[in-house]
Amino acid sequence: MDARLALAGTRTETTKIEITSNVSVGDKQLLIVGGPCTVEDLDMMTQSASALKGSVNCIRGGVFKPRTSPYAFQGMREEGLEILAAVSRASGLPTVTEVMSERHVEVADPIVDMLQIGSRNMQNFELLKAVGRASKPVILKRGLCATIEEFIMAAEYIMSEGNHNVILCERGIRSFDSFTRNVLDLGAVVALKQLTHLPVVVDPSHAAGKRELVPDLALAAIACGADGLMIECHPRPEESVSDARQALSLQDMCDLVKRIEPIAQAVGRTVPLAKPAPAKELVVSQTLQSSARNVGTTAA
Amino acid sequence: MDARLALAGTRTETTKIEITSNVSVGDKQLLIVGGPCTVEDLDMMTQSASALKGSVNCIRGGVFKPRTSPYAFQGMREEGLEILAAVSRASGLPTVTEVMSERHVEVADPIVDMLQIGSRNMQNFELLKAVGRASKPVILKRGLCATIEEFIMAAEYIMSEGNHNVILCERGIRSFDSFTRNVLDLGAVVALKQLTHLPVVVDPSHAAGKRELVPDLALAAIACGADGLMIECHPRPEESVSDARQALSLQDMCDLVKRIEPIAQAVGRTVPLAKPAPAKELVVSQTLQSSARNVGTTAA
Amino acid sequence: MDARLALAGTRTETTKIEITSNVSVGDKQLLIVGGPCTVEDLDMMTQSASALKGSVNCIRGGVFKPRTSPYAFQGMREEGLEILAAVSRASGLPTVTEVMSERHVEVADPIVDMLQIGSRNMQNFELLKAVGRASKPVILKRGLCATIEEFIMAAEYIMSEGNHNVILCERGIRSFDSFTRNVLDLGAVVALKQLTHLPVVVDPSHAAGKRELVPDLALAAIACGADGLMIECHPRPEESVSDARQALSLQDMCDLVKRIEPIAQAVGRTVPLAKPAPAKELVVSQTLQSSARNVGTTAA
Amino acid sequence: MDARLALAGTRTETTKIEITSNVSVGDKQLLIVGGPCTVEDLDMMTQSASALKGSVNCIRGGVFKPRTSPYAFQGMREEGLEILAAVSRASGLPTVTEVMSERHVEVADPIVDMLQIGSRNMQNFELLKAVGRASKPVILKRGLCATIEEFIMAAEYIMSEGNHNVILCERGIRSFDSFTRNVLDLGAVVALKQLTHLPVVVDPSHAAGKRELVPDLALAAIACGADGLMIECHPRPEESVSDARQALSLQDMCDLVKRIEPIAQAVGRTVPLAKPAPAKELVVSQTLQSSARNVGTTAA
Repeated sequence: MDARLALAGTRTETTKIEITSNVSVGDKQLLIVGGPCTVEDLDMMTQSASALKGSVNCIRGGVFKPRTSPYAFQGMREEGLEILAAVSRASGLPTVTEVMSERHVEVADPIVDMLQIGSRNMQNFELLKAVGRASKPVILKRGLCATIEEFIMAAEYIMSEGNHNVILCERGIRSFDSFTRNVLDLGAVVALKQLTHLPVVVDPSHAAGKRELVPDLALAAIACGADGLMIECHPRPEESVSDARQALSLQDMCDLVKRIEPIAQAVGRTVPLAKPAPAKELVVSQTLQSSARNVGTTAA
Repeated sequence: MDARLALAGTRTETTKIEITSNVSVGDKQLLIVGGPCTVEDLDMMTQSASALKGSVNCIRGGVFKPRTSPYAFQGMREEGLEILAAVSRASGLPTVTEVMSERHVEVADPIVDMLQIGSRNMQNFELLKAVGRASKPVILKRGLCATIEEFIMAAEYIMSEGNHNVILCERGIRSFDSFTRNVLDLGAVVALKQLTHLPVVVDPSHAAGKRELVPDLALAAIACGADGLMIECHPRPEESVSDARQALSLQDMCDLVKRIEPIAQAVGRTVPLAKPAPAKELVVSQTLQSSARNVGTTAA
Repeated sequence: MDARLALAGTRTETTKIEITSNVSVGDKQLLIVGGPCTVEDLDMMTQSASALKGSVNCIRGGVFKPRTSPYAFQGMREEGLEILAAVSRASGLPTVTEVMSERHVEVADPIVDMLQIGSRNMQNFELLKAVGRASKPVILKRGLCATIEEFIMAAEYIMSEGNHNVILCERGIRSFDSFTRNVLDLGAVVALKQLTHLPVVVDPSHAAGKRELVPDLALAAIACGADGLMIECHPRPEESVSDARQALSLQDMCDLVKRIEPIAQAVGRTVPLAKPAPAKELVVSQTLQSSARNVGTTAA
Repeated sequence: MDARLALAGTRTETTKIEITSNVSVGDKQLLIVGGPCTVEDLDMMTQSASALKGSVNCIRGGVFKPRTSPYAFQGMREEGLEILAAVSRASGLPTVTEVMSERHVEVADPIVDMLQIGSRNMQNFELLKAVGRASKPVILKRGLCATIEEFIMAAEYIMSEGNHNVILCERGIRSFDSFTRNVLDLGAVVALKQLTHLPVVVDPSHAAGKRELVPDLALAAIACGADGLMIECHPRPEESVSDARQALSLQDMCDLVKRIEPIAQAVGRTVPLAKPAPAKELVVSQTLQSSARNVGTTAA
């Protein structure tokens, strides 16, 4: 496998990638990304950031949504990017969102702090090259049936264009059993940590597909050496416009980070838990307050 | 599944799609697409068209190549499109080539007769929408681990943008056994013929990954009702710059179409075999004769 | 792979295996096995044999049933073997039934004409050795996720004990899509025909899991070189005690054999279709007429 | 799913299963099973027990070996059982070994402390019933492509015969990527802990297939709630007669248990680590000293 940029070679340490001046990944402190599957409106994003601040160090929210059906809600698009920006300014949390085309890269790169390539596009090579020319770090999700080698080579595509800030994300692979949505492949996480020098994070939400399985899988991911987690949570999970079955409540998300702490310590890592202090309401600009509230509940 | 355009509903016949004035798919005559994985130079394309004319009714050749490695040969791109056009003019065979981005659609749509969406891009929704606005029919290949429902919904994405000329192509799915490259899922072909009104063709080359398995799988595909075949063949298979292990020789390809004929008849179909007449050398314009001969043999 | 007995080596012909004095497999005439999933009572077996005689050359029926649940009906066992024997005497059709333990081999070997090893037991090595010491030919079904190499080595286990009459049966493998019950792997059939000298038959019923997909897959199997078929059919499919969704009616089974005939001819084979003559009612011994009629409809 | 005995229902606690008077599973203390894939001779078993005592609370060793090839070494059989018994007497460690037929159950049940059903036999229903009538607890390994429901129903088969002491063991499932031998499905572990009241242990050795991946996967298994581990280790891993690539050295095994300890504590469990005291040489009876040393190195 000719992955001259991604393979560890003789390097023994994970490459530390700076997301903002005070948040990085690949270092002692874990990257904990929380937030909803989809940016639905300003209100729910503000609520999410308020509740999660002090427990996570990055907020997620999809604005360009890859949906199986062309008739399902496709995301708030540019308007959603503005919401992410406003929430980030108010909360201080860096943001990440998925991009699905070269045009999305153009509009999202100046606004969010990390770009995400989703599973369905892991081998969309033109898109990989486009984020390879972007200015922000890229979270690259493993394809639904991508081999470990194909996954690494997809990272290499991005890096070969100049953007070396790639974070690999294991999020479950397709298998024969439909009890869990996908099968979380932690063996791949261990292998990727050994083969490459890139940070590796884990998304247990899409792997499990059922919220009651998410917390224990998150603990497992940290125990085996993952550099972070990406977990879906929502102010009212059952009302989420997409992937409702797998989202944690905001409270459960905060509780989970507390459960992760002793595991993190056992493997020499720390979690971004704030020292206990009353969480303040976030104040966001009035102009954005008018954002659409009802994007409609659409099936996946 | 809300595939209001793709599902058969009460229709009992396959939709006939015209590719050119005298070649169509979904009708009594089978669509037989032959040609190399990659357009390597004008010479090999001319040779291929010369030999295949009279046995196939469409020629394929990749000019934008999805390669696992960013360092592998990525295709002749625009120059390759010109070669396809020249070969089509000389042979009378319609052409098909894969597109991987919206820009590829823009440049290929005016030149080739069909656009192909490859497996890796089956859920590249922005690309699906782009070919949905193109003027030519689209061969949509099933993703490596796409469900039948996801496959149909991907066709629906294209159709929902206005282009109703979609041909589904089963090309093997990922499985646990590496003896064959993929597993040809003819059950999906039978199911797709029953569920949708779209023509369904089969690519046994990528499914098998070994040329000695291709002919018998081609016979099976026609026996179970496929509307056509897409088969890789090459003047010197062992020298192919990509997928060398699975390409048939041009002679074997022609022999295969003869073997298909009685199976086609048994299920009420015909093959595009010309009445025996001496095949003439194709004459192509001099300007193209200078096209690159050696694109370099690069590993997949 | 050290399969010194199963591999083709320099042999170019399939080994012909005689099941009875006038039925064999691996020869020009196809082996067509029909019958219900489960022997439910004498009546339905007599009806089946009456209707199928003239269209098939072997009858199947399970008497030891591998059921996912210990509380599901486990088969008529020894009583079922007597029914098979009676029906065979009356119809002249040879019989095949599955065995799941060494004790089953002991009781079934003297009564039926072929022993079947089911998918779940493909690597039950002690059982393979036991049928390797039996007197009757063995149909060995591929395991749900057995590689081609493991499948051949399982045949080798049987052959290494002295019984060289092994027939390989492809019956679908597990995959990620639940639209079809399993994925029929005809690439494996083509590969097995090339790698080994053993006859290879196909069971499209368990592969498809839906009766409307069975006939077209049966045609495909014959087109690609299979030496026979094993298809579930039932006098009243919807009332079958097991696998009701995939069984053909007896009439549809007979019609299917007629549809297979031209495909068989196209590949140089024949089907065991009798010359048109009025099918006579079978007469079976009175003692068996009292067999249980209602074994109860139990879920799989 | 009618698994009336295996499902948790309203029970909220894992059932504690006593293996010997001082070793149990399903309780606060983890079950840590170590030992070689295959019992090769008395010497290597004595060495293993000597080194592992104080770090594990159960020793494993196969004497009836399920091998893909009939020509590969099939195990020391009865002689191996005597070695296990001798080593257990000398070390005080309970033993577990795989059984593959009803006859194996008869001879092993009086000698070892736990019986193991291997992956290939998870749906060998006659064998499940046989261990359901045995006197010892049963470790049931998940089949290579068994669904969670099929796995639970296999446990139910054992329990329905009277033996309620069933321990479920996740050991990796088949997938498309051959980089790891199988894919460890910890989502299934979390699900099984929620669905059933049975203890669940994890075998990371067979899942990973490469020793360098085993320790981190072991940590992950404990973090997500597994009740124990089953890990292959060998005095000279590279000389192991089977599965040499995945065995840990005895020293690495002991070191791993020390690494597990803080993870165990983080989730409220303990490991069977002895207080530091000089490990004494085990003394085994002279009669057994003559056991075969060289069983021959045979490929899997």
